Amino acid sequence: MNTAANDAQARRERYERGMEVLSRIDGEAGQRVVQALDDISPELGHQIVAWGFGEIYSRPQLAPRDRQLITIGMLTALGGCEPQLELHINASLNVGLTPEEIVEALLHSAGYCGFPKALNATFVAKKVFAERGLLPAADA
Amino acid sequence: MNTAANDAQARRERYERGMEVLSRIDGEAGQRVVQALDDISPELGHQIVAWGFGEIYSRPQLAPRDRQLITIGMLTALGGCEPQLELHINASLNVGLTPEEIVEALLHSAGYCGFPKALNATFVAKKVFAERGLLPAADA
Amino acid sequence: MNTAANDAQARRERYERGMEVLSRIDGEAGQRVVQALDDISPELGHQIVAWGFGEIYSRPQLAPRDRQLITIGMLTALGGCEPQLELHINASLNVGLTPEEIVEALLHSAGYCGFPKALNATFVAKKVFAERGLLPAADA
Amino acid sequence: MNTAANDAQARRERYERGMEVLSRIDGEAGQRVVQALDDISPELGHQIVAWGFGEIYSRPQLAPRDRQLITIGMLTALGGCEPQLELHINASLNVGLTPEEIVEALLHSAGYCGFPKALNATFVAKKVFAERGLLPAADA
Amino acid sequence: MNTAANDAQARRERYERGMEVLSRIDGEAGQRVVQALDDISPELGHQIVAWGFGEIYSRPQLAPRDRQLITIGMLTALGGCEPQLELHINASLNVGLTPEEIVEALLHSAGYCGFPKALNATFVAKKVFAERGLLPAADA
Amino acid sequence: MNTAANDAQARRERYERGMEVLSRIDGEAGQRVVQALDDISPELGHQIVAWGFGEIYSRPQLAPRDRQLITIGMLTALGGCEPQLELHINASLNVGLTPEEIVEALLHSAGYCGFPKALNATFVAKKVFAERGLLPAADA
Repeated sequence: MNTAANDAQARRERYERGMEVLSRIDGEAGQRVVQALDDISPELGHQIVAWGFGEIYSRPQLAPRDRQLITIGMLTALGGCEPQLELHINASLNVGLTPEEIVEALLHSAGYCGFPKALNATFVAKKVFAERGLLPAADA
Repeated sequence: MNTAANDAQARRERYERGMEVLSRIDGEAGQRVVQALDDISPELGHQIVAWGFGEIYSRPQLAPRDRQLITIGMLTALGGCEPQLELHINASLNVGLTPEEIVEALLHSAGYCGFPKALNATFVAKKVFAERGLLPAADA
Repeated sequence: MNTAANDAQARRERYERGMEVLSRIDGEAGQRVVQALDDISPELGHQIVAWGFGEIYSRPQLAPRDRQLITIGMLTALGGCEPQLELHINASLNVGLTPEEIVEALLHSAGYCGFPKALNATFVAKKVFAERGLLPAADA
Repeated sequence: MNTAANDAQARRERYERGMEVLSRIDGEAGQRVVQALDDISPELGHQIVAWGFGEIYSRPQLAPRDRQLITIGMLTALGGCEPQLELHINASLNVGLTPEEIVEALLHSAGYCGFPKALNATFVAKKVFAERGLLPAADA
Repeated sequence: MNTAANDAQARRERYERGMEVLSRIDGEAGQRVVQALDDISPELGHQIVAWGFGEIYSRPQLAPRDRQLITIGMLTALGGCEPQLELHINASLNVGLTPEEIVEALLHSAGYCGFPKALNATFVAKKVFAERGLLPAADA
Repeated sequence: MNTAANDAQARRERYERGMEVLSRIDGEAGQRVVQALDDISPELGHQIVAWGFGEIYSRPQLAPRDRQLITIGMLTALGGCEPQLELHINASLNVGLTPEEIVEALLHSAGYCGFPKALNATFVAKKVFAERGLLPAADA
């Protein structure tokens, strides 16, 4: 095979590897985000899957549950990332964080990010938990 | 009384002290935020009331009017905190800031946070003022 | 003419100069933002036009196309500025950036601001492109 | 006088008006920042003085003391603005905020921005107070 | 005992409970931060200890190791919090996160916060690891 | 060749492609950042080079000069990224932005991010320009 064909195949394989991880972690919601990019920036969709999930998220040095704790912390602190937070709170439940742990993580965030961002994130969690029949949460 | 009962009572008293402050400053809107946390994170609701309002906001070293000026500055600068800004612009009116002063505070914010965040905050003020029959504002 | 009259005239002229630039770059959407400020903070509207566009944007040291690249970068990085991003993606198309360049700018932003903010900005671009009949984008 | 000469004079007058305000509020430290821009961006220095102080800060709708409360809130929330915070904590003392009020403002900020940013700002205040012989602060 | 004496004692006990947690997690470095507040804002120091550690961090709903993952994520995302990040990377090692996991957490952060903030945090980790004789890190 | 060997070779080639771009854009300063990661997070160094520069920056859809305008905008807006801004102002000069354009870009940023962040970035530019003998800047 020539170089260009090799490159195209390597690119495709990286995407498939990433999509396998993304589907396992995020479920259909993650796939829908990638599909929504199809007519505007398929390359962004490719890189989130192939690089973000295929090369980084899939590394064995940190368990998915741990990656989700960090991710929830980051998205809460950044602010304005409610759509991604919704996806990642769902993902957190998928990889084994309990509702009680997620709620506690957001309570913990108040001391570092302040109450407004902790509140924004907690109301995203409430929406996700409501959709999955997890309300009232364990602590409530 | 034993220690556990003492602790529970102290906790309840701190909450009541905070709720008295919260109700005076924020009115019913503040109570609604706390109630909305009931089935997801009652502890976050408790801490906002008992600690945020009962222990910090109620300290006499700074008047409520001054606290609101700082708070409006912070929420405008943070970005993405429009729900909290709405609450705190209402609170600012409740503790004696005039509509003209609030509008001027947000004009002043442009030089420090840039026009986009100043605009976001000003349109929140417009919504609050409209609901309270305060449009057109004094400067307009 | 006395000083006060001179000052008022100079102020009016700066506004007119700015409005000419604003209208050329942002079109009607920019004017609508200024009008929406009329009953809440006309001074903020005045300063965005007279200072932001009349004194800064209009300077010849940097072409409008270049200013829009910087602006898209800033608004993507700040987060929570989707309304302004919508205006400025429209403006970017008006001053000669191609849809392909805008999409690539937002792909480029992922490495510096992370995927969540790059996604938020890309979905704003998708909305703008859809309204202007520019979907699917060139890269798609 | 012709238009160009008029414009140059109006520009000079706005600068002088702003420098008068800046000097009164910030003292020599503010002038040093403007001078440090002389060989890199004199236009940025001009606009901070002529627009920031001459057109915005000097407006009578809000007292300097109130502007400083908002500014301290914004700079604390933004993060990474320690040099400007140092200037503005000095300015706050100059316009009548007491050390106790400034310390309380930063304690208040913890609930909205989190402890890390409140700590960063408080240590800037400690540096300023130390230089002005104001330690230990009133609350200490 | 009268109410004031009861309150003072409850306040002291909460502080002691928090200081016990702080000392266990952060070691002497945490105590030094609190001491540095003694002459500027002892109340901020009190609240970090009594509330932040005594009431929130000590809750059993989330293990210290998990709290540190979230905290590292938040401090990396916020930016400009290098002093706190240094403390919390030390704390993370103290509560059982391995150097390899911390390094991986910061690699993971790049996709959500971008490379610049991931780099800033990684160089803080390098400083901490160097001081504790942990370089080269496991992955290197 | 087997799959593992193929993967290792593809990884090496992506790194080399990225390093070629990085060296051309950033010069030795970029290589030094990557080397500084060698004993703490070589994988982060690898990904910045192989992905950031090899896969994203090198795409022909946007010229390096344009990428630098966006990047300067993002780093100024994020705040706390002075080390990266220093690198990227150097890079901007390397790919053809003039000192005058860079200074103007940062003046332009004031309206979107506020003066404090515009000042921080301008003083980084002053440092870079001084090191390259470019002071006083064209506009000064």
